[in-house]
Amino acid sequence: MKTLNTQVAIIGSGPSGLLLGQLLAQHGIDNIVIERSSVEHVLSRIRAGILEQGFVDLLHQAGCAKRLTEQGIEHHGIYVSVDGQKHHLNLKLLTQGKVVTCYGQTEVTQDLIAARNASAQRSFYSAPVTEIHNPERGQAHVEFEHQGQAYRIQCDFIAGCDGFHGVSRPSIPNDIRREFERVYPFGWLGLLSDTPPVSEELIYCKHPRGFALASQRSLTRSRYYLQVSNQDRVEDWSDERFWQELKRRLPEQDAAKLQTGPSIEKSIAPLRSFVCEPMQYRQLFLVGDAAHIVPPTGAKGLNLAASDVAALYQVLSAYYDGEPREVLDQYSPLCLRRVWNAERFSWWMTSMLHHFDQQESCSFLDRMSDSELNFYLENQAGKQLIAEQYVGLPYDQITLCNSLHAEKTIK
Amino acid sequence: MKTLNTQVAIIGSGPSGLLLGQLLAQHGIDNIVIERSSVEHVLSRIRAGILEQGFVDLLHQAGCAKRLTEQGIEHHGIYVSVDGQKHHLNLKLLTQGKVVTCYGQTEVTQDLIAARNASAQRSFYSAPVTEIHNPERGQAHVEFEHQGQAYRIQCDFIAGCDGFHGVSRPSIPNDIRREFERVYPFGWLGLLSDTPPVSEELIYCKHPRGFALASQRSLTRSRYYLQVSNQDRVEDWSDERFWQELKRRLPEQDAAKLQTGPSIEKSIAPLRSFVCEPMQYRQLFLVGDAAHIVPPTGAKGLNLAASDVAALYQVLSAYYDGEPREVLDQYSPLCLRRVWNAERFSWWMTSMLHHFDQQESCSFLDRMSDSELNFYLENQAGKQLIAEQYVGLPYDQITLCNSLHAEKTIK
Repeated sequence: MKTLNTQVAIIGSGPSGLLLGQLLAQHGIDNIVIERSSVEHVLSRIRAGILEQGFVDLLHQAGCAKRLTEQGIEHHGIYVSVDGQKHHLNLKLLTQGKVVTCYGQTEVTQDLIAARNASAQRSFYSAPVTEIHNPERGQAHVEFEHQGQAYRIQCDFIAGCDGFHGVSRPSIPNDIRREFERVYPFGWLGLLSDTPPVSEELIYCKHPRGFALASQRSLTRSRYYLQVSNQDRVEDWSDERFWQELKRRLPEQDAAKLQTGPSIEKSIAPLRSFVCEPMQYRQLFLVGDAAHIVPPTGAKGLNLAASDVAALYQVLSAYYDGEPREVLDQYSPLCLRRVWNAERFSWWMTSMLHHFDQQESCSFLDRMSDSELNFYLENQAGKQLIAEQYVGLPYDQITLCNSLHAEKTIK
Repeated sequence: MKTLNTQVAIIGSGPSGLLLGQLLAQHGIDNIVIERSSVEHVLSRIRAGILEQGFVDLLHQAGCAKRLTEQGIEHHGIYVSVDGQKHHLNLKLLTQGKVVTCYGQTEVTQDLIAARNASAQRSFYSAPVTEIHNPERGQAHVEFEHQGQAYRIQCDFIAGCDGFHGVSRPSIPNDIRREFERVYPFGWLGLLSDTPPVSEELIYCKHPRGFALASQRSLTRSRYYLQVSNQDRVEDWSDERFWQELKRRLPEQDAAKLQTGPSIEKSIAPLRSFVCEPMQYRQLFLVGDAAHIVPPTGAKGLNLAASDVAALYQVLSAYYDGEPREVLDQYSPLCLRRVWNAERFSWWMTSMLHHFDQQESCSFLDRMSDSELNFYLENQAGKQLIAEQYVGLPYDQITLCNSLHAEKTIK
């Protein structure tokens, strides 16, 4: 067994693990990233594409925003279509100037990997973790295998950035962990294509046939989604069937100008709400999907991972700057306040924008969601509430204890 | 069988039936009120006590607001207590000047009965309906018994103001009626006492032991409520037990100054959401609780009945003023828009302010409601949304067809 030493072992090379590594390294905190999959696999994953300003700021801070600045597209609003009738939410006006940026998660990951490769920080791909040792006191370690060789990383802290199915969360004992979950009775079928987006801004469509979303990754790459049954398989959906169904659910004027083309990627994702409390146990910190999942309505998943990173970077840098160890205890409550707000927003948007199943379609709760959506879209304070949460609630700041640091606010 | 003739037969002598009768009579439209119970029983019912401005305006219009003006108390705000921590919602500031008026439903009924007794309009108490005849075309009739005598009222229209358990709604055929219902897993135990209210404004309390509400009917009469299990019976709750439990759920500073006293009335009401669509069938119009029930959180029940009355008065007076019969078809859609909004508000307030059962207390949905309540109470647009709905959304106006009436707006 080969032994390595570092300050922070980061499990997972998605955007949160990489961004954390970059921020820590800039602050002089050594870290190692271990990723189960190959770098090619990591870069092939199609994920979100709408970044809150807080996330964009963090990428700037990490020195990884060059391509984002050149290629990211600011979105000043979104459309919500209810049974074909389009409403516009001017996010910028409703939030006194805030916007979101359209830039694919795959691009973010690529930029962060490039930055890491250019740095002195170590990374291991195709390196599955075999053990997490997280004692009450003293040094933690993470063991993994890489190219037939067993490794042990001796470290102060472990950042579990390895997603919902990763090994970090289950390493917290059952009697410590409380898990909250909600599974929705439908999934989203996503299609990626190299066609110009049908609309400059996203269109969220509530429709009797099911929800649809017209999203995008760039001016030449579109991402569309259809609500489908949990029983549906990707094989059931030819490109042709997908485009036909999408046209039915889009507002008429948009359907008429939809440009179709062959799919680059097509997949069905189940919709889930999930939270694990606490997000810290001893030396282990859970970050992003490892601790929480939101349904994609509202584009909060990636952004929530970013705010976890911001919080973990705050407490770790404060600790290494000389704050007492108790500063670390702020991580979980700081994150969870924001997590529960985003969980609520995502659950609420999902409930309002989807018809649940046909049988339920004339139920009391279905009427509630219809009434809610119409009311919020027609009421000024209602539109403001959707907009404020869509662009992202502000990041909270930790409280520093040492007077030395009292005036220093870590961004 | 004795035959009577009138324009509108009104079934039920609660506030909605009486108010409708008064407004119609003032417009020269003859009507008869038939009530199953005795006048004493009607006046002994303890009900709501918070009136929206729209309702107050209607009572003025009906000439029945003299005592209300003298004795009603304007409330400019409400308190919401979350686990003992008090938040204030300044309704007047948040809604640009709107307020609610505290005046007991029993007093409203008494004022309306006095006005009716002083008028030429006929009323029958202890008069159960035996038949509703509601043909596709032609004259309708209502048959009832009164002091051993059978009566038939020949009429143009029937107003079903006879509550949730009345005969009007079931007289609409099953294949026409669509009913939406939600029953909540708890009830409200109410206690009325001749003690000064603990607070000038209402206090809605969310508490780990269950919801509580400190309400009032006047400066010397208090109405308090406790969330109790659906299995509880009134006999389980001595006055002493009630006051003890209330003190535990109120904010500390309020509990300390709570004045207790013997109960005048004590009862348990189940919580229910219910809507019947449509609210009109041929010559029959459903009004208030006959068509819809809301849980009491948010004080919408009586106010919603009042807005139904306003709508029915609008269409009937327009019709008798010479509008084509089609004007009547506006009744149901006009009411239902407002009904669904109030149903949603009441359901939402109920969901946010109550812990559901103990088993569910750490569930995802419970966390959603905690997060929602805290978010709305801390966010300016959120507070505004609660306040706007609490004081009542504006009444909609019908569209007149005849050019003769085009410039006339019926209030």
